[in-house]
Amino acid sequence: MDELQIIKIGGNVIDHTEKLQTFLKDFAGLNGPKILVHGGGKEATSLAKKMGVPVKLIEGRRITDQANLDLVTMLYAGKINKTIVAQLQNYSCNALGLSGADAASYTATKRAVEKIDYGFVGDLKTINTPFFKNLLDLGISPVCCAVSHDGKGQLLNTNADTVAAGLATALSEHYEVVLSYCFEKKGVLQNIEDEHSVIPEINFKLYSQLKSAGVIADGMLPKLHNCFQALKNGVKEVRIGNSMILSTEKQFTKIIQ
Amino acid sequence: MDELQIIKIGGNVIDHTEKLQTFLKDFAGLNGPKILVHGGGKEATSLAKKMGVPVKLIEGRRITDQANLDLVTMLYAGKINKTIVAQLQNYSCNALGLSGADAASYTATKRAVEKIDYGFVGDLKTINTPFFKNLLDLGISPVCCAVSHDGKGQLLNTNADTVAAGLATALSEHYEVVLSYCFEKKGVLQNIEDEHSVIPEINFKLYSQLKSAGVIADGMLPKLHNCFQALKNGVKEVRIGNSMILSTEKQFTKIIQ
Repeated sequence: MDELQIIKIGGNVIDHTEKLQTFLKDFAGLNGPKILVHGGGKEATSLAKKMGVPVKLIEGRRITDQANLDLVTMLYAGKINKTIVAQLQNYSCNALGLSGADAASYTATKRAVEKIDYGFVGDLKTINTPFFKNLLDLGISPVCCAVSHDGKGQLLNTNADTVAAGLATALSEHYEVVLSYCFEKKGVLQNIEDEHSVIPEINFKLYSQLKSAGVIADGMLPKLHNCFQALKNGVKEVRIGNSMILSTEKQFTKIIQ
Repeated sequence: MDELQIIKIGGNVIDHTEKLQTFLKDFAGLNGPKILVHGGGKEATSLAKKMGVPVKLIEGRRITDQANLDLVTMLYAGKINKTIVAQLQNYSCNALGLSGADAASYTATKRAVEKIDYGFVGDLKTINTPFFKNLLDLGISPVCCAVSHDGKGQLLNTNADTVAAGLATALSEHYEVVLSYCFEKKGVLQNIEDEHSVIPEINFKLYSQLKSAGVIADGMLPKLHNCFQALKNGVKEVRIGNSMILSTEKQFTKIIQ
């Protein structure tokens, strides 16, 4: 099986023009099939302010009402996605931007209203694996944003980390998938205060120990949970590092079973 | 050769939820390969107002500066395109939204600065015919917006009528193309005051006569010029009518060589 690289970048890369350019050049330079998944960035907040769209929070959780969904669709599926795609084309990478609605590439289920009504938020449901395989066979690199749909005409705001993990899992049928999460740190840190204390490799046993010892906590817990789920479902390797992981940055955390 | 339908809709359809829904249902119901090209709508103006983006006019011509390009990219390639695609998916049409940057599907050349600097406006240059052929062979219906790119990383605002004509011409290599322009009237009118005076068929000879007689004037002139160019370059038939042309509306103008 060929290797497939799936890279997820977040707001910390998207918000920095230079970091983003360096990353996109590195991504374009990768040999073989590859998929980019991107989140949003701080611009969502500034655009909401400009447009007078209030940010709605219930019990500290962000709610996606119609106005916020429109904003996210404009920004993620429109400006951010197309800017990235045009720049990758300039670096000779044949990129194609996608929302989940396009060719029904990924669908989501609107989150059920229980204690909180999250609005137009969806949890990933299906991946159109044959479609991604077709694109990759044509030498096309999909660039996926976090906007998905329910297949019944409703766009839904979906978590980009989950889209990346879902793609990685589904495509493991055809490829040896290496999934990389790029965030602001160099990897999973032994000591959160020390940027250089990157743990080079974590397997499930070490993960359990680090969790018990409180070394891994907060936002890193669901991230790593996703990673182990992906590995369990056939993904070959997951990496957590910063956006230089594809080129100069030698330190990162490798997650294996 | 199979028949390929290419339909262009403008702001007058996009601005009316009901008209748009009816049109999308009709489009989804078309048998065989099909492509939709859409323009923008009045929302560009209201969004510009909301965001405090000034509309720049020089000698009455609209100028696309960076802020207006961002707005157009968000609205056309983001909100409008993805809303249409999600709705077509709901009507069982496997739609895929595209800007020109996606898979370099269409490129444009930034308009040269002569008397007026139009800003980030591009004139259509190339169509990636094999890519469209691949999508159509997969049963996918491309949904194209007016945002294109120069292949060097710059997005450009391009005329949607021209994108439709360019696609029709390029794809004539593989298909018998029927190109339909949907606008607010039922077709080319003999008498602009009489909505029912639709001229059923116009060939180049009749066009020349009607032009001389002043029956065809103003905005209809470049539209018809484009139509005859497309016919000259291999397109089988061009239709001008309203958005009901695909279903209940029996009147429209057929343009033939």
